[in-house]
Amino acid sequence: MVKRRTPLAVEEAVKKVMDCKLEGKKEYVSIFESLDRFLAEDIKADHDIPRFDRSAYDGYALRSKDLADCTEENPLVLEVIDEIGAGYVCKKNIGKNEAVRIMTGAMLPSDCDAVVMLEDVVESSDGKPYITVTKQIHKGENISFKGEDVKEGVVLVKKGTKINAGTVALLATFGYEQVPVAKKPRIGVFATGSELLEVNEALEEGKIRNSNAYMIMAQIKQAGAEAVYFGKLADVLEESYEAMKESLADVDILLTTGGVSVGDFDLLPDIYEKLGAKVLFNKIAMRPGSVTTIASLDGKLLFGLSGNPSACFVGFELFARPIVRTMLFSENPHLPTASAILTADFPTANAFTRFIRSRTVLEEGVFYTGPSGTDKSSIVSSLIHANALTVLPGGKNGYKAGERVQVILLEGNFN
Amino acid sequence: MVKRRTPLAVEEAVKKVMDCKLEGKKEYVSIFESLDRFLAEDIKADHDIPRFDRSAYDGYALRSKDLADCTEENPLVLEVIDEIGAGYVCKKNIGKNEAVRIMTGAMLPSDCDAVVMLEDVVESSDGKPYITVTKQIHKGENISFKGEDVKEGVVLVKKGTKINAGTVALLATFGYEQVPVAKKPRIGVFATGSELLEVNEALEEGKIRNSNAYMIMAQIKQAGAEAVYFGKLADVLEESYEAMKESLADVDILLTTGGVSVGDFDLLPDIYEKLGAKVLFNKIAMRPGSVTTIASLDGKLLFGLSGNPSACFVGFELFARPIVRTMLFSENPHLPTASAILTADFPTANAFTRFIRSRTVLEEGVFYTGPSGTDKSSIVSSLIHANALTVLPGGKNGYKAGERVQVILLEGNFN
Repeated sequence: MVKRRTPLAVEEAVKKVMDCKLEGKKEYVSIFESLDRFLAEDIKADHDIPRFDRSAYDGYALRSKDLADCTEENPLVLEVIDEIGAGYVCKKNIGKNEAVRIMTGAMLPSDCDAVVMLEDVVESSDGKPYITVTKQIHKGENISFKGEDVKEGVVLVKKGTKINAGTVALLATFGYEQVPVAKKPRIGVFATGSELLEVNEALEEGKIRNSNAYMIMAQIKQAGAEAVYFGKLADVLEESYEAMKESLADVDILLTTGGVSVGDFDLLPDIYEKLGAKVLFNKIAMRPGSVTTIASLDGKLLFGLSGNPSACFVGFELFARPIVRTMLFSENPHLPTASAILTADFPTANAFTRFIRSRTVLEEGVFYTGPSGTDKSSIVSSLIHANALTVLPGGKNGYKAGERVQVILLEGNFN
Repeated sequence: MVKRRTPLAVEEAVKKVMDCKLEGKKEYVSIFESLDRFLAEDIKADHDIPRFDRSAYDGYALRSKDLADCTEENPLVLEVIDEIGAGYVCKKNIGKNEAVRIMTGAMLPSDCDAVVMLEDVVESSDGKPYITVTKQIHKGENISFKGEDVKEGVVLVKKGTKINAGTVALLATFGYEQVPVAKKPRIGVFATGSELLEVNEALEEGKIRNSNAYMIMAQIKQAGAEAVYFGKLADVLEESYEAMKESLADVDILLTTGGVSVGDFDLLPDIYEKLGAKVLFNKIAMRPGSVTTIASLDGKLLFGLSGNPSACFVGFELFARPIVRTMLFSENPHLPTASAILTADFPTANAFTRFIRSRTVLEEGVFYTGPSGTDKSSIVSSLIHANALTVLPGGKNGYKAGERVQVILLEGNFN
C-alpha cells in the first residue's frame, strides 16, 4: 500500500532543520592550512600597524624645519650621517642639516619627521656623502604613520568568516602561527540500493554505477565539512540498520542517498524508526526531491536524500549546506540568491516548487537563467554546467520565457 | 644613483608572461581527491546513460497494448507475475494481461513497454497478486529511455574544466576511479628583506612580521598550484643567490616578495643577472606594483613581486595566476571582469593604471564598486574585504563617483 505523506513547504522544512541548532566546535590549525577554513574567533589587532612611523619610500629621512626655505633657487645641502635598511634602527642623533639614507619600510629616526624621495635629490660626495634638495619637504611627507593601517584593539575579521588570502596576510601580521578555526563537521555517507556498482566495479546488466555518493562527498567538502564514505548498503533492513547505527557514533551528520521513497525496497523509514530517530519531515512540496526525509537523534542529524542525482544534489544544497555553515559559525549560512530573467518556457503547472538546475549568466548587469540540461531528476548531465538553481514556486499555471524569477547561486560554480 | 626604467603597459606585460607558454603536465588522482582539480583530458561517455530502458517510478511494468481500451468504466485486471528491485533483472516472459512489480531505476523487462505508477493502481489478491488499472497507459510512459541522459561518445566535460560536484558525479558514472588531472605547478616562495620576522617570532624594534609570503601561498593554492615555502632571505647578495639557484631546480616558478625596487638593498635585479635569467620587464605602468619584475630562465619563470602587501597581491593576480591556469589547461586563464559604477571619487590624476582593492556589490542587477579600505599600497587591512580590483586607467584627470569602470572579480572572494 502507498503510505500517504503530508508535504511541507520548503521554507518550513529548512527552518525545521536549522532549529536543530547543531553546534560548531573550535580547533587550531597551522596558518599554512588555514585557507578556506572558517574563523572560530574574532581576530583582533594586538598592536598598531604600522607599529612605528616608517618610510614609505627609498630616500632620505630629515628634519622638515631645516628645509623651511628650501627652493630650486635656494637649494639645501644635507650631510648623510647614517644609512638604515628596513629592519634596522638608527642609533645616531640627527642634527641641523643632517639626513639619513633610509629604505622603504625602515623605522623613521626619532629626530626626523619627513622623508625626501631618492628621485628628488642629487647625491654628491667629498669623502663624506651629501644630498642636495631643491624643494620644501613638509612634516610627515612620505611617512607611513604608526597605526594608520590598523589601530590596536580593532576587530579585523569576524568569527565565521571564510579565510581568504587577505585574511591570511593579517593572521601572519598578528602572529597567528596557529589559527582558531571551526572544526569541520564530520558527515558520513552511505549509498543505498542493490542496483549500485562502485566506481571501480565492472558494469553488470540492470545495475548502475553509484554516482550520488561521490557527488555528495564533493558537495560536503565544498560546504566546508569533512566527508567520510562508509560504502553502499544493499536493500536489506537488518544489515543496513546495524551499519548505520555503528557509523552514526563516528559522525555529526549521517547522510544516505536513496531508499526514502515509498517502494518496497525503500528501507530508510523503517531504519529511522528502529534507530528511535525523530523524523522532522518525510515529504516536501518541491521537485525534485519531494521524498527528502530528515530525522534527528541525540543531537545528530540524519539526512535521507533521494536516490535521483539531481534530487540528491538539490536536497544537499537546500537542507544540509546551511546547517554545515552554521556549524562553521557563518552568519549567512544560505546560498546567495538573485533575481533573473527566464530564458525558457516551463509550460506545465506544478503544485510543488521546482528547483531547476540552471546556467545563469550575467549580461550587462542582468542575470538570465535557463536549464543547464534536460530537466528530469535522473539527469546527471544537467549538473555539470549548472551554476544556479532556478526557483519556480508551485501553484502557478506554468512559466514563460521573459518572466522574472529567483535563482539560487551555487558556490564555486558561479565564476 | 637611480636607474631609470621604462614602464611597460599592463596588457603588454601580461602578454610577455603568457608568451613564455609554460606547459602543463598530467597526473592521475583518486576520484575522492578530484574536486577543484582541473581535467587534463576531455571526459567522454563510453556508454549510454541510462544504459538500458528503466522505470522512472515505483509501479508496475506492463504491455501498453493490453490497456488500449482501458478506462474507468472498463478497468483491466492484470496478474502480477514477478517483482524486480533496482539492480535485478526480470527473467520471466510477460504475456497478455500480465504485469511485473518494478522499482524506480530497475530495468524494464523486455516484453514490457510502459510502467503504471503505484499511485494509479488498486492492488488485490486471491492468493496470487493482481492490480486493477482504470486508464490507458501509453507506450513509453514512465520510462527513462536508454541514452536519454547521455549518448555514448559525447564529450561531456572539456579538458581544462575545474572539477565540481556535478563533474564528480559524471566521473563516477563513467568509472573514473582515477581521474586524469593537471599536475599542480610547483611554485616556490621566498620573502626577502632583513626587516622580516616570521609569524612565530617575537616582535623586535624596527622589524615587521612577514605577511606577504603567507598571503601569496594562499593565493597560489587558490589559483590551483602547489606552494612551497623556502623561508626568508636577508638582504645579502651571495646567500640569496645561492638559495634561489638551489630552490629553482625544485619548482616550475620561483616567486619572491620584495627586493625589486631601486633601493640599495634591493638585490633581485643583481640576482637575476647572476642567474643568467632574461628579464622580461622591470617596470609596469601600474599602481601599486610598478616595480614588479619578471624573468625567465630555462623554461621556468621568476616572479619578483613588490614587498608592499597590496602590490604583491595585485602582481600575483594579474601576472602569476593566468600562467598557473594555463598550466592547468584552462581556456579562460584570466579573472572575470565586469562593468561597475564607482561609489567614491579618485581626484588625483595618475599617469599609471591603478588597481584599487575594492568591495564590489551587486544590487538589482548593477555592480557598484568602491575601495575596501585605505588605498595605500602598504595597507593590509584593505585586502580582507576586497572581492575585486577596480581598474582606473592612467592618463585621466581623476575619477568621480558615478562613473562606469571595469572591475576584476577576485575568485573565491566574490560570493
